[in-house]
Amino acid sequence: MLPRGRPRALGAAALLLLLLLIGFLLFRGDLDYERPRPRGTAAFDGDPPADPGGRNGSDCTPPRPRPPKCELLQVAIVCAGHNSSRDVITLVKSMLFYRKNPLHLHLVTDAVARNILETLFHTWMVPAVRISFYNADELKPQVSWIPNKHYSGLYGLMKLVLPSALPPDLARVIVLDTDVTFASNIAELWALFAHFSDKQVIGLVENQSDWYLGNLWRNHRPWPALGRGFNTGVILLRLDRLRRAGWEQMWKLTATRELLTLPATSLADQDIFNAIIKEHPWLVRPLPCVWNVQLSDHTLAERCYSEASDLKVIHWNSPKKLRVKNKHVESFRNLYLTFLEYDGNLLRRELFGCPRPPPPGAEQLQRALAQLDEEDACFEFRRQQLTVHRVHITFLPHKPPPPQPHDVTLVAQLSMDRLQMLEALCRHWPGPMSLALYLTDAEAQQFLRFVETSVVLSARQDVAYHVVYREGPLYPINQLRNVALAQALTPYVFLSDIDFLPAYSLYDYLRASIKQLELGSGRKAALVVPAFETLHYRFSFPSSKAELLALLDAGSLHTFRYHEWPRGHAPTDYARWREAQAPYHVQWAADYEPYVVVPRDCPRYDPRFVGFGWNKVAHVVELDAQEYELLVLPEAFIIHLPHAPSLDISRFRSSPTYRDCLQALKDEFHQDLSRHYGAAALKYLTALQQPRGPT
Amino acid sequence: MLPRGRPRALGAAALLLLLLLIGFLLFRGDLDYERPRPRGTAAFDGDPPADPGGRNGSDCTPPRPRPPKCELLQVAIVCAGHNSSRDVITLVKSMLFYRKNPLHLHLVTDAVARNILETLFHTWMVPAVRISFYNADELKPQVSWIPNKHYSGLYGLMKLVLPSALPPDLARVIVLDTDVTFASNIAELWALFAHFSDKQVIGLVENQSDWYLGNLWRNHRPWPALGRGFNTGVILLRLDRLRRAGWEQMWKLTATRELLTLPATSLADQDIFNAIIKEHPWLVRPLPCVWNVQLSDHTLAERCYSEASDLKVIHWNSPKKLRVKNKHVESFRNLYLTFLEYDGNLLRRELFGCPRPPPPGAEQLQRALAQLDEEDACFEFRRQQLTVHRVHITFLPHKPPPPQPHDVTLVAQLSMDRLQMLEALCRHWPGPMSLALYLTDAEAQQFLRFVETSVVLSARQDVAYHVVYREGPLYPINQLRNVALAQALTPYVFLSDIDFLPAYSLYDYLRASIKQLELGSGRKAALVVPAFETLHYRFSFPSSKAELLALLDAGSLHTFRYHEWPRGHAPTDYARWREAQAPYHVQWAADYEPYVVVPRDCPRYDPRFVGFGWNKVAHVVELDAQEYELLVLPEAFIIHLPHAPSLDISRFRSSPTYRDCLQALKDEFHQDLSRHYGAAALKYLTALQQPRGPT
Repeated sequence: MLPRGRPRALGAAALLLLLLLIGFLLFRGDLDYERPRPRGTAAFDGDPPADPGGRNGSDCTPPRPRPPKCELLQVAIVCAGHNSSRDVITLVKSMLFYRKNPLHLHLVTDAVARNILETLFHTWMVPAVRISFYNADELKPQVSWIPNKHYSGLYGLMKLVLPSALPPDLARVIVLDTDVTFASNIAELWALFAHFSDKQVIGLVENQSDWYLGNLWRNHRPWPALGRGFNTGVILLRLDRLRRAGWEQMWKLTATRELLTLPATSLADQDIFNAIIKEHPWLVRPLPCVWNVQLSDHTLAERCYSEASDLKVIHWNSPKKLRVKNKHVESFRNLYLTFLEYDGNLLRRELFGCPRPPPPGAEQLQRALAQLDEEDACFEFRRQQLTVHRVHITFLPHKPPPPQPHDVTLVAQLSMDRLQMLEALCRHWPGPMSLALYLTDAEAQQFLRFVETSVVLSARQDVAYHVVYREGPLYPINQLRNVALAQALTPYVFLSDIDFLPAYSLYDYLRASIKQLELGSGRKAALVVPAFETLHYRFSFPSSKAELLALLDAGSLHTFRYHEWPRGHAPTDYARWREAQAPYHVQWAADYEPYVVVPRDCPRYDPRFVGFGWNKVAHVVELDAQEYELLVLPEAFIIHLPHAPSLDISRFRSSPTYRDCLQALKDEFHQDLSRHYGAAALKYLTALQQPRGPT
Repeated sequence: MLPRGRPRALGAAALLLLLLLIGFLLFRGDLDYERPRPRGTAAFDGDPPADPGGRNGSDCTPPRPRPPKCELLQVAIVCAGHNSSRDVITLVKSMLFYRKNPLHLHLVTDAVARNILETLFHTWMVPAVRISFYNADELKPQVSWIPNKHYSGLYGLMKLVLPSALPPDLARVIVLDTDVTFASNIAELWALFAHFSDKQVIGLVENQSDWYLGNLWRNHRPWPALGRGFNTGVILLRLDRLRRAGWEQMWKLTATRELLTLPATSLADQDIFNAIIKEHPWLVRPLPCVWNVQLSDHTLAERCYSEASDLKVIHWNSPKKLRVKNKHVESFRNLYLTFLEYDGNLLRRELFGCPRPPPPGAEQLQRALAQLDEEDACFEFRRQQLTVHRVHITFLPHKPPPPQPHDVTLVAQLSMDRLQMLEALCRHWPGPMSLALYLTDAEAQQFLRFVETSVVLSARQDVAYHVVYREGPLYPINQLRNVALAQALTPYVFLSDIDFLPAYSLYDYLRASIKQLELGSGRKAALVVPAFETLHYRFSFPSSKAELLALLDAGSLHTFRYHEWPRGHAPTDYARWREAQAPYHVQWAADYEPYVVVPRDCPRYDPRFVGFGWNKVAHVVELDAQEYELLVLPEAFIIHLPHAPSLDISRFRSSPTYRDCLQALKDEFHQDLSRHYGAAALKYLTALQQPRGPT
């Protein structure tokens, strides 16, 4: 087909040239002329040669500049909500994997993302990474006037305000969408700043779709753009020059003008960036296409990556994300999955030869670790206690429960082998839950799919899942409990275990009991929920205390651990409970480990207990030492379901060293108790001396 | 102790020197002078500049050559035994992760490593990787005359014979120890061949220890070397030139001469390479230190990597491996663990822009996958059936049982959540076992540690563990069973499940029964081992049939699945078994799924059954269709231990689609059965029509 309307096009081109000339004369004065780049990089008009070896026949090509060793690279990312927070972590993992420079991440976040990412980076402790947060909500008014149809919503527009939102002394920044994955060292991208001519302020990769060419369908009217336009998933910004050029006024003027004829942005900030570039084409520095390989449907990206046989950054810029149709998508997905499932702990490695201040807490931790004796038989226990686990709170979307004075959150922890308990638990407990999950990065993704494919689980927004990443050989049970406890948002918590199913009425009954017993008025009490167990994996759950008692009499149910460890629950006094009509007091006794409801500000669990044994016992000792009343609830019950013994309990049973180490931990716990509570703690030591069974 | 016989040795040395001189004069003419490199790279005497950007003030440095896009790179590795086979896979993963070129791996292996690696690469199906095997045992005579004290043993010397062992048309090869890890693209290493001067034939990195300087302790007499000497963990070999230079005679002469005064090699091939280089220093091309960062104790490697702030290849060249003392070892270990735990499936990605013939079977698989309908409700099932899982047979050291005519191997499969069954199983079954484990790469490492720390498991060399790597959402139960079955080496197999413990006497009893029933003489029979279950997780295992019957009467034991699915085992006829003194025949009936002992050449399991349901039933139908007698053994029994329901059984129970898909699979199974067995298969279809319970 011959191109149509050529004469008209030529006339238009002449007009444009004139306009461009005027535009150029108008703007050039405002741009930054200081610090000219030494090597005449303005000579590169398109992509610099992909091969630094310069196989163009000449033995002497201007070398590609690299950022000096140890130069701090600046990266900005806008991130809001639970799902984007997960995405940004995968992006950061890919960036950290290949990087050899210190990084400063500037995260523009809403409250949810900030809460998640602050905890995550604090516990991640990656050397040579600095994090700054910026409040996206404060920036909203600057962009909320722009109608926007893109799925990223208001946050999609926020890259426009970075020059004013980021610190005024920040001169250059790489801006990334949360849906990009690095396949190379970000320093190579940073080095492209050196190719900017004196006028260029925005480095961008050309769009790899025909969107901005228009006419994709009837009445498809994209925003104006130079040719195919540019994609804003990866941006190099000369903030200093933008500020001096009056960027804020520039983009607002352009957006306002275009919105006179266009109803809204379709691709958020990208439409506005392109409209500006169309007006001021000298502002843009085109970047090699490999720095933003766009995987939307019908993409032209293949031309880019198969010529280069190289990929630097992949951009999942389709609402379909990983389900996008691209004939090589399997390969790209593998690269993405690499980092999705990558053990983030492994990124805690130092940058050699780039001394940087260690992350907060890291020095103290190093000192403590250095004091451990590798020959100590209990070394594994002591190492595990000191381990700082990466924590990703509210891994999945979560709506905090509305504040209610007597509300109670079920608190528990689990690992992968107990996922199948979650649906039943949701059916038995209609209230809020805070669950800590001990997972690898790969398991966290399996967990995500498990929840997404479960009708029961995906319907619940009041269950908060907190992922604690696995590290070390022993299950850090009390650290997990503390994470779940710290994230409970109601005034009361029910400290349960994952293998128990509560009576269907328990949630309502607990709230009524809290109210009736006036716990809210400063009364310090722990409400005991009696525990039972079944040995059958198929079993019909009793709908009332009467039914439970009948099953107990029939031998289908037992009081919890009646056969193996009756001391753990004996003080609950099951005989009395059977007849009780009202809550009754019980006294602490050695090895008592009931399941209790307490105010949220109760003592934390002692993190020294890792693996199997004494982890809950120590917490109940602490409650008693702090003079919590122990009140058994007459209508409350939970039932333990059978499962194979955990690896930890198997090790406890088979290894004398394991038992000796647990004993050492118990001794140290009692020493600390005496130190803290003085003579009042004597009774716990005395109780220890009495003859006793296992544990 | 002083070395004895020094005067004689000195005389011999003088003689050898003379011989060598003659040898040198004879051979130098043979060195390869053709094809001079164009860019005068001989000017580089030490490391080429680490920075191709050439920040040495000049804008024009000779660019570092890169191998042409898509050039096939050649790599040789010597590998023997079970443990080295695991190591080599980690090395290969790191190489594949960064590579952008097709690779040809030349693996010099013993029979064990070949068996493992052939299966692994065959099932891995990595595009653009070709594998050739060379029989290390055939090469042994060429090096076995050299006394060697190094922990790598005879295989440590085998790199010396590569020029003659590898194909005569192979001109260049990178030789790697199994204990190296790549942190960069191997093509960059290959590119260093271009720096070789016309005389250079061996590229090596200088040693990063003082070993060859001598005097590390009294009477420390290392082999001769140039200065610190060179490390042979990473070698660039110009095979063409070496062959022409009479390499074989050269190294044998040098080794013979040195062994006149030195009792043995201490560092295997490395001592001999260094002695040769000391004599003919022009043969060596020194490589940049980053290509072989040596992490032995007291290493000087830090000077290398902190200046370069770059690592290309890490070499764990200490017998202590990961436990080596190096202040940065944690960081290096993280890089190693990255690849140790890396999901090898993700390396199945294509090389863009480098068309290569697909690996064997890959095209057929692609066609089958392309025919699947993504909208089909059973798509997940069909996708899972087609999945080719990577298989690592005999993951841990294993000694095949000595051939015995009536021996029987216990065959089972498991995933991570059943590891705790292994010790008990070993106590109950003293005979050979073949177990398939469905694991991720990371879990395989946890499994390894689990076995290593278990006294019971690490004492057993007759248990073969075969790792089948996880991929896809459904448990490929029958594919796992087939892997374990295919690797059983005795004439009979006991097809069990991991949750069962056999009677202590079962192994002996089965062998006696096989002998007594004359199964060896071509009798086609399946011996049924009756199955029971306990619902208690602590339980005292009956030591005889009498005890078992007492427990059954007391209600502590039940026949297997008596409550949920009695049809599965009803044909075993437990009432008759109770009284039986001799084996008795039973007839097949619908849904019968007994645990049986059969000859090793029995039908395979039908791999279409994935996830929960009908996987064993279909196998017993197949046995019946092939007219196996079903004989119940009167003294045999196994007992199932309780566990939480698997995720698959939970999905089966909660998802109607899951049940529908299983029904579809069953229908297709019966269609295939009719096709294969004709009218004889009619009874299975008829049985299907009868009224029945679930499944």
